Amino acid sequence: MDLSSFITSLLTSFLIFVILMVLFALLSTKPGNAVVYYPNRILKGLDPWEGSRSRTRNPFAWIREAFSSSEQDVVNMSGVDSAVYFVFLSTVFGILLLSGIILVPVLVSLAYTEKNPKIVDSTGKNAFDDLDKLSMAHLKEKSPRLWASVVACYWVSLVTYVLLWKAYKHVSDLRAAALMSPVAKPEQFAVLVRDVPSSSEGYSRKEQVDSYFRTIYPETFYKSMVVTENKEVNKIYDELEECKKKLRRAVIIYEDSKKVNPEGVQPTHKTGFLGILGKKVESIKYYNEKIDELTPKLEAAQKSTLADKQQGAAMVFFTSRVTAAAAAQSAHSRMIDTWTVVDAPEPRQVLWTNLSKTHYERDVRQYVVYFVVFLTILFYMIPIGLISAFTTLPNLRKLLPFLKPILDQTSIRTVLGAYLPQIALIVFLALLPAFLLFLSKAEGITSESHAQRAASGKYFYFSVFNVFIGVTIGGTLFDSLKEIERDPNSIVGKLATSLPGNATFFVTFVALKFFVGYGLELSRIVPLIIFHIKRKYLCKTEEDLKEAWYPGDLGYATKIPNDMLILTITLCYSVIAPLILPFGAIYFGLGWLVFRNQVLKVVVPRYESYGRMWPHIHVRILASLLLFQVTMVGYFGVKKFIYAPVIIVLPITTLIFAIICKKKFYRFFKTTTLEVVASQELKDRPDMETVYKSFIPPSLNTEKGTGESAGVDASKDRQNMETAYKSAIPSSHIAEGPRLDQVV
Amino acid sequence: MDLSSFITSLLTSFLIFVILMVLFALLSTKPGNAVVYYPNRILKGLDPWEGSRSRTRNPFAWIREAFSSSEQDVVNMSGVDSAVYFVFLSTVFGILLLSGIILVPVLVSLAYTEKNPKIVDSTGKNAFDDLDKLSMAHLKEKSPRLWASVVACYWVSLVTYVLLWKAYKHVSDLRAAALMSPVAKPEQFAVLVRDVPSSSEGYSRKEQVDSYFRTIYPETFYKSMVVTENKEVNKIYDELEECKKKLRRAVIIYEDSKKVNPEGVQPTHKTGFLGILGKKVESIKYYNEKIDELTPKLEAAQKSTLADKQQGAAMVFFTSRVTAAAAAQSAHSRMIDTWTVVDAPEPRQVLWTNLSKTHYERDVRQYVVYFVVFLTILFYMIPIGLISAFTTLPNLRKLLPFLKPILDQTSIRTVLGAYLPQIALIVFLALLPAFLLFLSKAEGITSESHAQRAASGKYFYFSVFNVFIGVTIGGTLFDSLKEIERDPNSIVGKLATSLPGNATFFVTFVALKFFVGYGLELSRIVPLIIFHIKRKYLCKTEEDLKEAWYPGDLGYATKIPNDMLILTITLCYSVIAPLILPFGAIYFGLGWLVFRNQVLKVVVPRYESYGRMWPHIHVRILASLLLFQVTMVGYFGVKKFIYAPVIIVLPITTLIFAIICKKKFYRFFKTTTLEVVASQELKDRPDMETVYKSFIPPSLNTEKGTGESAGVDASKDRQNMETAYKSAIPSSHIAEGPRLDQVV
Repeated sequence: MDLSSFITSLLTSFLIFVILMVLFALLSTKPGNAVVYYPNRILKGLDPWEGSRSRTRNPFAWIREAFSSSEQDVVNMSGVDSAVYFVFLSTVFGILLLSGIILVPVLVSLAYTEKNPKIVDSTGKNAFDDLDKLSMAHLKEKSPRLWASVVACYWVSLVTYVLLWKAYKHVSDLRAAALMSPVAKPEQFAVLVRDVPSSSEGYSRKEQVDSYFRTIYPETFYKSMVVTENKEVNKIYDELEECKKKLRRAVIIYEDSKKVNPEGVQPTHKTGFLGILGKKVESIKYYNEKIDELTPKLEAAQKSTLADKQQGAAMVFFTSRVTAAAAAQSAHSRMIDTWTVVDAPEPRQVLWTNLSKTHYERDVRQYVVYFVVFLTILFYMIPIGLISAFTTLPNLRKLLPFLKPILDQTSIRTVLGAYLPQIALIVFLALLPAFLLFLSKAEGITSESHAQRAASGKYFYFSVFNVFIGVTIGGTLFDSLKEIERDPNSIVGKLATSLPGNATFFVTFVALKFFVGYGLELSRIVPLIIFHIKRKYLCKTEEDLKEAWYPGDLGYATKIPNDMLILTITLCYSVIAPLILPFGAIYFGLGWLVFRNQVLKVVVPRYESYGRMWPHIHVRILASLLLFQVTMVGYFGVKKFIYAPVIIVLPITTLIFAIICKKKFYRFFKTTTLEVVASQELKDRPDMETVYKSFIPPSLNTEKGTGESAGVDASKDRQNMETAYKSAIPSSHIAEGPRLDQVV
Repeated sequence: MDLSSFITSLLTSFLIFVILMVLFALLSTKPGNAVVYYPNRILKGLDPWEGSRSRTRNPFAWIREAFSSSEQDVVNMSGVDSAVYFVFLSTVFGILLLSGIILVPVLVSLAYTEKNPKIVDSTGKNAFDDLDKLSMAHLKEKSPRLWASVVACYWVSLVTYVLLWKAYKHVSDLRAAALMSPVAKPEQFAVLVRDVPSSSEGYSRKEQVDSYFRTIYPETFYKSMVVTENKEVNKIYDELEECKKKLRRAVIIYEDSKKVNPEGVQPTHKTGFLGILGKKVESIKYYNEKIDELTPKLEAAQKSTLADKQQGAAMVFFTSRVTAAAAAQSAHSRMIDTWTVVDAPEPRQVLWTNLSKTHYERDVRQYVVYFVVFLTILFYMIPIGLISAFTTLPNLRKLLPFLKPILDQTSIRTVLGAYLPQIALIVFLALLPAFLLFLSKAEGITSESHAQRAASGKYFYFSVFNVFIGVTIGGTLFDSLKEIERDPNSIVGKLATSLPGNATFFVTFVALKFFVGYGLELSRIVPLIIFHIKRKYLCKTEEDLKEAWYPGDLGYATKIPNDMLILTITLCYSVIAPLILPFGAIYFGLGWLVFRNQVLKVVVPRYESYGRMWPHIHVRILASLLLFQVTMVGYFGVKKFIYAPVIIVLPITTLIFAIICKKKFYRFFKTTTLEVVASQELKDRPDMETVYKSFIPPSLNTEKGTGESAGVDASKDRQNMETAYKSAIPSSHIAEGPRLDQVV
């Protein structure tokens, strides 16, 4: 990539960013958009604008607000997991900043002032374009200036160790503070029991579980809840809920019609396929009948499910948090394949269908999934390699000669050269996360957050292997395929030699990611448009409207591996092409700023894992560092630097550091330590029945009149939502149907 | 080794065995020797001869008794650990027997009937002596008969897997039955807490521990016992006990002298060095004075120790077994380096001085010990290699020419050739176990049984590396040193080629081990002689006498690695020289018989670990199997057998088998599972104060009049000892001094 397309790429990205910023400043102050730009505050029952509701407020106030917010604000608004994400962003920002301050001035000036004889590449041009002159590639073989690079490697590693250690400590404190909170959480009183052996004659699973745990914990055992096979009951429940929803809609349509015509028009619909075919019926009557028919059916299904479809898993509730925490860490049965007791997940993130999978099934599924992921990583490499090989302009011209006239126009060539490979890459990567999450859930994992972490890990390894190694090697694949074929061991050397050539590609990749990505994230253009379309044409009830603006969560599973990929790229190039460091630092710094805004005002976490993500993040940062160090060992070899072995100390140090950190900190993230749950008196002993009920799946809730899934917290949330929604939505849209109470 | 020296070796060993058996038959029926041949029965308060006390009883009755004893008898007489040792012996016996039944007839006949052209070795003789003709070495390269060897490898492996799986299950049941016993054990109510953080101002460690555990376990916490630095108090206590013992002796001597001279002679001794120098004093008066002086000194030391020398470790007692078991498995503190809670060891096997070692100290010590062991294994290899290289007769003749006239005499040569290497090896190995046990204790391990296991593991790796690999390679070292120097990778090939030559050496080694070793073990000649000498010349009091005959324990730490070495050798040669199999089977079969007798009648276990040794045994049997399989891969390579890769399946299977077994069974051996301690009601709830007191070290027991270390059990033992001893000792020796009560 030459200098002009490099600059073009940067400028275009920046331009898009500026446009999106302006849009954000304009749109976010409009009251009608409040539910799109401030949903988290609204759901928490807070005023979106914090006092200054005027339209003339400073459009950059969000920056000040983001900077002035404390970590505690983040925890309050979005939970510990979000706060941990900021620890990650600020730690990496710190690493890249501290590295950049030293490396950029020193290494760039050393590289630029190196007197290097003109090297001519295979096409007859000078192998160094203007940008490459600023990189380590410009240093001569065996040059004593390589010592500066060695020192730089040590500096980057040292900074990483120190900041990671501090961050781990800090996250550990965050987690402890959250777990020690005097507010009781239902999952702290429960454990999940899997692999309940098939019951002996005459006893139901529930009796079996009860007697087992009552024997072991005679004083603190409260109750058990055997997991059931809910497929049938769920189906009926969903159908019923759908009917209720449609009834509410029909009622509102009827009420609206009265405004025009005092008698009103009974809404009608057809019962057949998609409402197009079939008999025409009066909706309100039809749905009322349907509900009357389904309600007793649901009750019957609930009864038969609870009685006859008990599975080999259960939630067991204790009256003491300490007992529950200790039970989840203790071996109960002699054999590993019966009575497995683990921490209960939060009620809202239990993956019910996975609970009853047996020990061996889980094992087998895990290996199968790992194998599939392994294949995915390997076989995606081929298309990615092909894409990046194809999309270099000289290759395009060579392989698709009919495009030649177009590609020879300077402006098109510049734009294409700047963007084609990056866009191909980004589109490509968007397809994967859902598949990996599906695979992770198929492993038999019990909680959403754990599945997200597992998917995130898979995505990380995928990204590093495919994007980084794939692009780096793939970019030079056509030239070097034969060489690799001849000597497969040369891949490391190949990787090292082809690194500098890809540096500018990755700089523009990083810049595109943050300018366009963060711009879109902050301005929320897409959700805004979708919300307004839905509001105008589809939403009838309050519920519909809330669904239309209800925000997602932070999206750990894809966000962190993406950030990790940027970090890996930046670290790996930090010494070879130090100019990448400021871009990396901006990526994480700007990310911190943008997401601070999002977390405080927009996103609503779907679950809370109290920072369990951190050990994974930590290990992956170290994996990136290791890749950097190993690459440097190879690159110093390519430079024929005879002191290269001094770098070998670094990967070893990284491994030792990883082991020490794991030993010292990891246990607290894996288990709930007893002192933490015991150290603080609970504000008020929770009602055990509430705790128990919070775990009942909505479709099995047999109490009259409630269809809610969670207990106290969720219903409070719901309340807030209603209030917030009413205060924020133009009043013309609020229309409470008189028959709603009757329906619910 | 040629046929004649082979036969000589076997015959001599057998002769020694027969002599020792005859001695045993004669000596064991004499009532005066009962305390040497039946101490375990005597200590348990049982009649040594079980009814038939006549001298004319069948001298081989012990064989019948051994065979008719059940596993439960072994558990009752000697505990679960002993029963597990028999599971080991019978499992290995089964493996070797089942292998031998197939391998010996098939492989030997195939090898013997192979038409092999005369191969001439470097010295010009036929490379195959008579014995080698029966081994796989006699098969031609690429011979199709090698397929039989392949099948044999699979057969041996299969038999091992099946029997090991069964054995693991069986041992697991044994352990469960013992732990579920309704008799409460003090250690089941306690946990050991290490790494208590330095106490905050104004609180003693004890207050700190109490408040920490009372917060977490408000209902079940009973009491804590902080570990103290006992060096000073132990010294005073030992001095006091020594004085008391000497006083009792002096009293008896005085009483004895009255029989000769009615006035009696006051015994005297000198106070200086070894009783030779110094002032002459009247013993009884002197010791009484000394005791009066030391007793208040001890009390003062006890007080100051308990108050001022508290260390960072404690025993914590709970009123519930389940709580103690769960606590030992749970993480209490956020940081790994504080409040480490583990299972409490049995009171009698606590290694007090190790308890207060901190987390990091333990880590460092462990690595240092591993490094020292590593060095030991490597550097002992040199002397062992030299010894076995020197002690082959041709080498001796070559290197020590002045011995030539002696060595040329046929009889001397035969005996030397048969025994020299084996004796050198056995003597050499006798030096090591104590050193390894010392090293293991230095790691900071908390219990004697754990230290024994650790030492046993070190000894196993030492044996396999040094004896097996050392002798095998060392025996041909002089010929092949240069070759290895040229290509270090050739060691595996070297090992494989030099294997057959050493087969007969190892057969005689095994035979010597079991004939002479078991003969000595059963006949107890050495303890018998020592006992009679002591009884005649040294013993004055009952106590002295009991000390003289008190038996040791089974000696796990050295016995199992030795057995393992035999197993490793037998397995490795099983296919190459199948004739070793019957010898191996006899070793373990005879071992079972002899030790059945010893366990039922002689040895008294010093501790009980409820079969925790088994996982280690299991892993090491698999390690032996793995070594066998890898060796075979190499040996098939040497035989240029192109289908050798089919053997590679076996080591992989072994690794997978090891992983599965570990996953399935190991957890129950590592931790106390809750269902086991909760499943059975205790016969009677133990008095918690007794439990607490059983952990008080004797030197700190402040109660008047007791100097005993353990609680209930030990004092019961002591009682039994006294009774048993009185019934078994000729009455002339029992002389109760009238002042004994006054003294104690």
